[in-house]
Amino acid sequence: METLATPSLTAIHIESFKKIVGEQFVFVDEESLNNYGHDETENLHYSPEVVIKPRTAEEISAILKICNKERIPVTPRGAGTGLSGGALPHLGGVLLSTERMNSILSIDDRNLQVTTEPGVITEVLQNAVKEKNLFYPPDPSSRGSCFIGGNIAENSGGPKAVKYGVVKDYVLNLEVVLPSGEIIWTGSNVLKNSTGYNLTQLIVGSEGTLGIVTKIVLRLIPLPAYDVLMLVPFKNLEQAGEAVSSIFRAGFVPSAMELMEIDSLKIVSKFVDSTAIAITDDTAAHLIIEVDGNNMDLLMGEMEAISNLLSQYDIGEIYFADDAQQKAELWKLRRRVAEAVKLIGYTIEEDTVVPRAELPALIKGAKDLGKKHDFEVVCYGHAGDGNLHIRIRKEGIPNSHGNAVMTAALRELFDLVKSLGGTISGEHGIGLIQKPYMDIIFREANFRLMRDIKKAFDPNNILNAGKIFDLHT
Amino acid sequence: METLATPSLTAIHIESFKKIVGEQFVFVDEESLNNYGHDETENLHYSPEVVIKPRTAEEISAILKICNKERIPVTPRGAGTGLSGGALPHLGGVLLSTERMNSILSIDDRNLQVTTEPGVITEVLQNAVKEKNLFYPPDPSSRGSCFIGGNIAENSGGPKAVKYGVVKDYVLNLEVVLPSGEIIWTGSNVLKNSTGYNLTQLIVGSEGTLGIVTKIVLRLIPLPAYDVLMLVPFKNLEQAGEAVSSIFRAGFVPSAMELMEIDSLKIVSKFVDSTAIAITDDTAAHLIIEVDGNNMDLLMGEMEAISNLLSQYDIGEIYFADDAQQKAELWKLRRRVAEAVKLIGYTIEEDTVVPRAELPALIKGAKDLGKKHDFEVVCYGHAGDGNLHIRIRKEGIPNSHGNAVMTAALRELFDLVKSLGGTISGEHGIGLIQKPYMDIIFREANFRLMRDIKKAFDPNNILNAGKIFDLHT
Repeated sequence: METLATPSLTAIHIESFKKIVGEQFVFVDEESLNNYGHDETENLHYSPEVVIKPRTAEEISAILKICNKERIPVTPRGAGTGLSGGALPHLGGVLLSTERMNSILSIDDRNLQVTTEPGVITEVLQNAVKEKNLFYPPDPSSRGSCFIGGNIAENSGGPKAVKYGVVKDYVLNLEVVLPSGEIIWTGSNVLKNSTGYNLTQLIVGSEGTLGIVTKIVLRLIPLPAYDVLMLVPFKNLEQAGEAVSSIFRAGFVPSAMELMEIDSLKIVSKFVDSTAIAITDDTAAHLIIEVDGNNMDLLMGEMEAISNLLSQYDIGEIYFADDAQQKAELWKLRRRVAEAVKLIGYTIEEDTVVPRAELPALIKGAKDLGKKHDFEVVCYGHAGDGNLHIRIRKEGIPNSHGNAVMTAALRELFDLVKSLGGTISGEHGIGLIQKPYMDIIFREANFRLMRDIKKAFDPNNILNAGKIFDLHT
Repeated sequence: METLATPSLTAIHIESFKKIVGEQFVFVDEESLNNYGHDETENLHYSPEVVIKPRTAEEISAILKICNKERIPVTPRGAGTGLSGGALPHLGGVLLSTERMNSILSIDDRNLQVTTEPGVITEVLQNAVKEKNLFYPPDPSSRGSCFIGGNIAENSGGPKAVKYGVVKDYVLNLEVVLPSGEIIWTGSNVLKNSTGYNLTQLIVGSEGTLGIVTKIVLRLIPLPAYDVLMLVPFKNLEQAGEAVSSIFRAGFVPSAMELMEIDSLKIVSKFVDSTAIAITDDTAAHLIIEVDGNNMDLLMGEMEAISNLLSQYDIGEIYFADDAQQKAELWKLRRRVAEAVKLIGYTIEEDTVVPRAELPALIKGAKDLGKKHDFEVVCYGHAGDGNLHIRIRKEGIPNSHGNAVMTAALRELFDLVKSLGGTISGEHGIGLIQKPYMDIIFREANFRLMRDIKKAFDPNNILNAGKIFDLHT
């Protein structure tokens, strides 16, 4: 395990930070330290010693120079919506919030690019570019509150990823403050780049362990004019998984293909009023299928063809969302699942991902594991890319990661994921919570490379130390 | 500059290599050393001391273990079609050819993935997956001869990149032999991955300096059923550049958008018979525009809309390629440009890339530079992604990179590219040839990070040393 590089911050450091960002943006009161001591990851809490809210890359540079010299741990934080504990200041030290860096700097509709600061809410960014008829597709369920900077840190996905790809597929260039205080741009604002090592893609998904992202250049695409949405009830969960694969094999590329098994639907329907979904005794799961494009006739034709294809499975009546309100209702159901399931005591949202066609095997394996260890198991997620969120619940055990039985079961689950050609995080990151399972996926040589890369960026291990992997084992 | 790590190979090493791969796959005869001493980069030649043709990752591992211990330089080589000197064995030592590793290992049409060895010709791979109605879009002009492994090394692009992205957008997972001889997989065979640093994307485009890729897992997409192609003559070169940007701003995403200025066309038409292109006195450039998809009516409608949009510019008569033969003819013209221009004495194909809308400024700047320094300048390339190939010619100067006037002019060109937000290589890589210009793009901190990453993978600097950057300055 990582340990604190220095015993603690001193008042002298705090004074220096105040000089850099202004007194009103440095917080040491208990309430602030408490507020920034947790994220959306289970019920974990670690208080930082100070919360700093800088406004510019230069301020961050000055802060990091001090912390690097004095070996003070620094935890960067976006909106704190993460699900893997990446923003938890588990070593104390400085909590560096990017919330004041919340400007969209330019929307370049000549080049279909946007340049933004990291503290902009993802949905705000999406809406801003939409006004220029442009589209930034990656939108995690938390898009209404998460920051684009956090999305970069975790390489987030969301329902559109199945057609449009994840965050990494949109990042052209990043301004990054290194732990040394140096400020670099990782690349250029271009669509193709074969100029040196891809530092941009190395930063994406590095969970704030290599540098602090202060400006982001994203490519955009033309906004599709229309989308069509349908909901398909399946009587058999594994058949739903098979259907997902068959749609792609038939040549369709839906813009979303989400799976909700009946248990998750039953739970969410307690929290969200909806007439869209008939929860009948013989329904095992629903698929939400969306296609988008610029020609409505074509989209209707695609939906019809997909419906015909699905008639080979044991399905119920297909529900077509006719208008914007019905669509919004369906998406609301899907987006609220995680929240609802958490509210009734399910532990952390696991973020397994397998090759798409292995989805039935993963679902079956997860359910079998539940039976074996006497858990409840619910599954939902981005079935189109094989990214299945799995949550478990056992009476009287509030936190999967503090419990030996639960962690043993999760290890079995991840062994299965690995054996299916998959991995343990598709879009949430490893952070603090998934770190104990990394050995299932990687060999010692992979760890050595990752550690040496970390050392290249952060030789004193001040930046989000102990996340993803321990530097010293 | 890099220097040889050891004076030379000995006969003992050669014997060891023969034991590993078999006597018949180790070559020290002059003809072999000569054949593997050049690629498609200008007229450069460096002979290796031995050429080895391994068949497996395990053989490569055994070879690298010896070379790592004995500090013998190793240059990996695919088909030798590179344009930046990445496969030139400029330090002597071992030339390691992947040509025998030429099997497509599996085409997984359930998951839309292919697993291949690096020595498969790109077009062979494309055709193999096409038989299953699947599509691997990235296809450099050299697709009929280049290897997929080389494409990974350089992060190649090609004409389809404008809609479908470049090689990096298709690589899911790589088996890599490290200089230590360790064999790793960089990731998992999944569409979304937030599990640790993105080693996969670090290897893509690293030009064989970090490890030798021995297996490649690529994602595939459904093959579009139709494409439609047209050729648009422009009377003004800069207007052609502006038109490119306007098409995207209007919401179209063509599957190819290539620019050929009239000088390049005149040259290639000497080598390729074609009736497709009318070269008239008042034509400055042609755009090749292709759209693809599954609905022919929609495609025809798109082409009509694009034609209407282009009528605001000073264009000649648009030529529609009606059948497969006419399309093939147009593409042949485009693909042969580089070859033709080289044959008549133009130097290396520069690989500049700028944000799409800056294309007119880049074209104008390049032409102005020619006038200023008394060069001939031709431009062509993938205008849709702002990736413009520029070639220059000056009487009596056969090799741009050996000549002070030429290199000074190129430096001016790259300064312009940088000032337009672009970079010096979009798809060819840096290799040996573009290395002297890297300081235009990157700051010292970027170099330090890249060097430290190189050291993490290759502490003894045996693998393609002195490519992209010098480890020791």
